Amino acid sequence: MIKPLLQVALDHTDLQSALVSAELLAPEVDVLEAGTILCYSEGLRAVEALRKKYRKHIILADLKVADAGAVVAQQVFNLGATWMTVICNAPLATMEAALKVARDKDGDIQVELYGDWTFEHARKWKSAGLRQLVYHRGRDAAAAGQKWSDTDIGKIRNLVEMGFQVSVTGGLTPGDLPFFKGIPVKAFIAGRSLYGAANPVEAARKFHKAIDVFMK
Amino acid sequence: MIKPLLQVALDHTDLQSALVSAELLAPEVDVLEAGTILCYSEGLRAVEALRKKYRKHIILADLKVADAGAVVAQQVFNLGATWMTVICNAPLATMEAALKVARDKDGDIQVELYGDWTFEHARKWKSAGLRQLVYHRGRDAAAAGQKWSDTDIGKIRNLVEMGFQVSVTGGLTPGDLPFFKGIPVKAFIAGRSLYGAANPVEAARKFHKAIDVFMK
Repeated sequence: MIKPLLQVALDHTDLQSALVSAELLAPEVDVLEAGTILCYSEGLRAVEALRKKYRKHIILADLKVADAGAVVAQQVFNLGATWMTVICNAPLATMEAALKVARDKDGDIQVELYGDWTFEHARKWKSAGLRQLVYHRGRDAAAAGQKWSDTDIGKIRNLVEMGFQVSVTGGLTPGDLPFFKGIPVKAFIAGRSLYGAANPVEAARKFHKAIDVFMK
Repeated sequence: MIKPLLQVALDHTDLQSALVSAELLAPEVDVLEAGTILCYSEGLRAVEALRKKYRKHIILADLKVADAGAVVAQQVFNLGATWMTVICNAPLATMEAALKVARDKDGDIQVELYGDWTFEHARKWKSAGLRQLVYHRGRDAAAAGQKWSDTDIGKIRNLVEMGFQVSVTGGLTPGDLPFFKGIPVKAFIAGRSLYGAANPVEAARKFHKAIDVFMK
């Protein structure tokens, strides 16, 4: 099994704070995510600033694109993103348009799973050439008390068996990682539990320790 | 029947061009929309700039929010937006959190319909207090040749009968308006067919003429 990546979701409302967190966490993580909130707040200059400063990291633009796939993807990949997210209920035409642009730039598209998606949808994404999914316990859903469950784990396992690379996110802490034991998770994504920690570097190292245990 | 509003979706990739279009079109439209593409490109300064310049218009932030409803809504409504969109497969908790913030600022939330939503979902939105929907023929779906159909019209009619205010969008031209005859559409939304026209003011006036015919 390939070791899962560690991804920080920079969900700050201003670029300067996001760059401070990135500076601390870049040596500890594989993927720097320009989070949805950051992109909303500051626009795509957030992606540009991260790429200018961090040449070797995977940079993800978490825009959850629902439409105008090509137009948005052209901007995002021209600014140096490696990956971009689309929302799972975007039209297939949007996903395909975004994917074409991404592949031309050696990038990739991730489908972000929210709401009532089905395995029938997943088969269509697969046929359209999509390879990456983000399995999500939403921020608001998490705050409303929704936990990781056997249902989540079963669905993630099915998606992996279909051939998808699946990243997981949603209020993740190192203590949650054993839930995913035996699943070749692409990336564990954490936001505030990394950059919002009293000591972000230490928090990242706790994630790495949990990933090492997870790999055994 | 209340006369439908005319809304321009400013889907420019830079704020300066958007403001040029807004300057031309503001006297002709009721709603100025900071489009998703514009918000992605420039961040929420787009909403701020529109509100600073146009104090009396309805200003819509078309973010298609999928998560973190309260955080995003707080920013958006503090910057002067009147309405904000959420995507239809966002968790109900996200919609409720956004709606609470919106109402505190005398604003409102619109649920944007993409993909396989159902009337069962619509009933839940209604129970949660949501009043506005945007019925969408996606940009990429439109480009792929998908037309307005009797199915679309039937669904819109059902949603209106459920008590929703429904705005419609997706490659709309004045020639499309007769399709919606008899339905109390909240707003007709057009982007490139307004600001991309050789004469945007004339294009807006053609929409108004079509709306007048529609009202008879």
